[in-house]
Amino acid sequence: MRGMRAGWSWFFLLVWVSVSGAQERGQLPQPVDWLEAGLMKGFPPAKESLVTKANWLNYPQLTWSLQHARELFPTRNVPRGGKPWEFPVALCSLESIPFKDEHGKDTTFGRFLKDTYTDSVLVLHEGRVVYERYFNQMTPRTPHMLFSVSKSIVGLLAATLVREGVLDERAPVSKYVPELESTALGDATIRDLLDMRVGVKFSEVYTDPRSDIVAYVLAAEWVPTPPGYTGPKDLYSMIKGLTQRERPHGEAFGYKSVVSDVLAWAMKKATGKSLAQMVSERLWSRMGAEEDGFYLLDPIGTEVAMGGFNATLRDLGRLGQLMLNKGEVGGRQLIPREVVEEIMAGGDREAFARAGMTTRPGWSYKDQWWVTHNENGAFMAMGVYGQRLYVDPKARMVIAKLGSHPVASNAFTDLVHMKAFQALAKELSH
Amino acid sequence: MRGMRAGWSWFFLLVWVSVSGAQERGQLPQPVDWLEAGLMKGFPPAKESLVTKANWLNYPQLTWSLQHARELFPTRNVPRGGKPWEFPVALCSLESIPFKDEHGKDTTFGRFLKDTYTDSVLVLHEGRVVYERYFNQMTPRTPHMLFSVSKSIVGLLAATLVREGVLDERAPVSKYVPELESTALGDATIRDLLDMRVGVKFSEVYTDPRSDIVAYVLAAEWVPTPPGYTGPKDLYSMIKGLTQRERPHGEAFGYKSVVSDVLAWAMKKATGKSLAQMVSERLWSRMGAEEDGFYLLDPIGTEVAMGGFNATLRDLGRLGQLMLNKGEVGGRQLIPREVVEEIMAGGDREAFARAGMTTRPGWSYKDQWWVTHNENGAFMAMGVYGQRLYVDPKARMVIAKLGSHPVASNAFTDLVHMKAFQALAKELSH
Repeated sequence: MRGMRAGWSWFFLLVWVSVSGAQERGQLPQPVDWLEAGLMKGFPPAKESLVTKANWLNYPQLTWSLQHARELFPTRNVPRGGKPWEFPVALCSLESIPFKDEHGKDTTFGRFLKDTYTDSVLVLHEGRVVYERYFNQMTPRTPHMLFSVSKSIVGLLAATLVREGVLDERAPVSKYVPELESTALGDATIRDLLDMRVGVKFSEVYTDPRSDIVAYVLAAEWVPTPPGYTGPKDLYSMIKGLTQRERPHGEAFGYKSVVSDVLAWAMKKATGKSLAQMVSERLWSRMGAEEDGFYLLDPIGTEVAMGGFNATLRDLGRLGQLMLNKGEVGGRQLIPREVVEEIMAGGDREAFARAGMTTRPGWSYKDQWWVTHNENGAFMAMGVYGQRLYVDPKARMVIAKLGSHPVASNAFTDLVHMKAFQALAKELSH
Repeated sequence: MRGMRAGWSWFFLLVWVSVSGAQERGQLPQPVDWLEAGLMKGFPPAKESLVTKANWLNYPQLTWSLQHARELFPTRNVPRGGKPWEFPVALCSLESIPFKDEHGKDTTFGRFLKDTYTDSVLVLHEGRVVYERYFNQMTPRTPHMLFSVSKSIVGLLAATLVREGVLDERAPVSKYVPELESTALGDATIRDLLDMRVGVKFSEVYTDPRSDIVAYVLAAEWVPTPPGYTGPKDLYSMIKGLTQRERPHGEAFGYKSVVSDVLAWAMKKATGKSLAQMVSERLWSRMGAEEDGFYLLDPIGTEVAMGGFNATLRDLGRLGQLMLNKGEVGGRQLIPREVVEEIMAGGDREAFARAGMTTRPGWSYKDQWWVTHNENGAFMAMGVYGQRLYVDPKARMVIAKLGSHPVASNAFTDLVHMKAFQALAKELSH
């Protein structure tokens, strides 16, 4: 990795990546409740119960940290507006809904929630709350880390700016961000960025300390920088160091988190507004959010666009319902109908297939949303450690599900989630 | 200062203290609006416009940072409750109210607001909003640093716990915090702490890098720790290092910020609750606060009790009105009437006089509130850089005033504030 001295200075980082690695390979731990586990308990908290920037993504520490990200990082508020958008409630007992998991074994929705380390889940059907549950001390007012669900918010607003003519999807991003001209990103178009078909070399292996994503988390100060660290100390500087290309832009889909930050950078340059301001003005303050959202910030106040957004379960559900409603709420069109329809229609499935994501067969990626192309036309926003917003247009169903799964990669539980969500859709469509 | 290497590692710190010092000695700068001044403008912000932990208390940077503390520091929310406590509005034009300043020169309330770098001001009279103004981009929803106004919140709740028998005011603090036994604080009583009559040596000279308050801000990470820093890295550790005594406890009043943190520590140990939780449960969620408040945190999640609370102007006004109402709002007694009456009655004026505060003649300090003992029985919470909550029982008036004054010490503007507030009281009592 650029600019970091070898040797003992890697210590922190190695602990972090090795623990993550062990969790992906080994046995899954028993789900814990952070209060019962005694995390952050006491004044001062006992050393072994302390959650810090050095261990917040380990298990069980993440059972606490994903509900308390604000206590670890600087943040920027995304203000809500006036009256909340209230949903009628028609509760159903969904726990006992049976389905077969990815191995063909019988299970139930309730069992599945436990098995996937769920912190909270909300199911909306026909605009009504049919199911809402909180675990692991989470409450309706608790903001939760959304990780890469954040990308879909960036994509939604970027696609809106394209529709409004503020961004030209055929223009190279360097038109808006001249700083990118000498990088491997400068000649990628806004469309390439929106659909993650960017040829920049950006490796996303959380368990390899030389991976670019590790350089990213160091620049954002998501983990403590090791002593002697001389790499980039903010996200813009890190992005400007991406000069290697692995293939031409516009071809294969490749999931590169930094692309969302590059897209956000173009949006900010084009509008003169911070990302937090845009999300508040267009979504949070107008869609009837109950609570403010917030972004984690890098050391110079840049929102972590690819994964730093936090919101409550219900507000995430509202965003899903807004998508189902094709951008309209209470008679107001917050997002152009055409933008939501463009996402629903999906992206290039061949380009997507070339990424070889075996747990997402036949899918595509459009405007930073995952599109399943299943028979119900479901599409999704997803974030590591179990964050999902699933929109099923045919079943008129929205599922917001937040978690603190010990395995970062959602691929680990993709298949069982699809089985579960499709079982719910079938049940509710009866 | 304990545990810090001499030499170039002091650089950051010296810049900070020397700038503060120059401001206290020299000419006052023209008031600026942070947006017009271009602070934090651009993506990335231009280097000279960047506000960081290294310069956030300098002028003009503090015009931005006191409204954006959350963007620089980890924070813990202090949740509001349900419906806001709405005040009837009966606006008066108070700008032209004339008064003589501390030098006998004619001025007006409006002029005074400009002269004292006001960010916002709210005047309540007989429970009605008679005046409310925002400057420097502040809005009714902007949270603002309250600095040592935070102490009065700690004192109010600590005195309540005493009244409820949860804390024994005659007990040494080590009864609740055994960690303090071997320090110069352990045998101070809860009452000594409440009234700031503690004999621990704790120098509060912001402009002297060897001062204990500088050790405090380093432990809390309110400024970046210089390379080579080996001092305490959290507030509890810093407190445990306070082993020197300058006089017996219980005698002279001495304003030592750390005392509020020690008091908060005892409260947390006695209740098992965080300070944020206590403030939410007893005040913010029950007094009809409009917005969540929040605390700045040290690196292990300890609220900065002495000065890290942030709230909106109106919510600060609600706290003032609650005091004027002797702890009651909407038929509910949130704070025992006797506690507010104890504060109103004030503390030991002789003990106070020994501190030699020339701008606060005849005052006292009780339960972490400043009591003026003027003819109206006014009392006050105060924080550096111009934060004040003034309660005038006789005039039935509350003034919440937030600012970003280039001079940290409120002593610099004490006299003119008293003149202004008393002029308003007189005018409104007509």
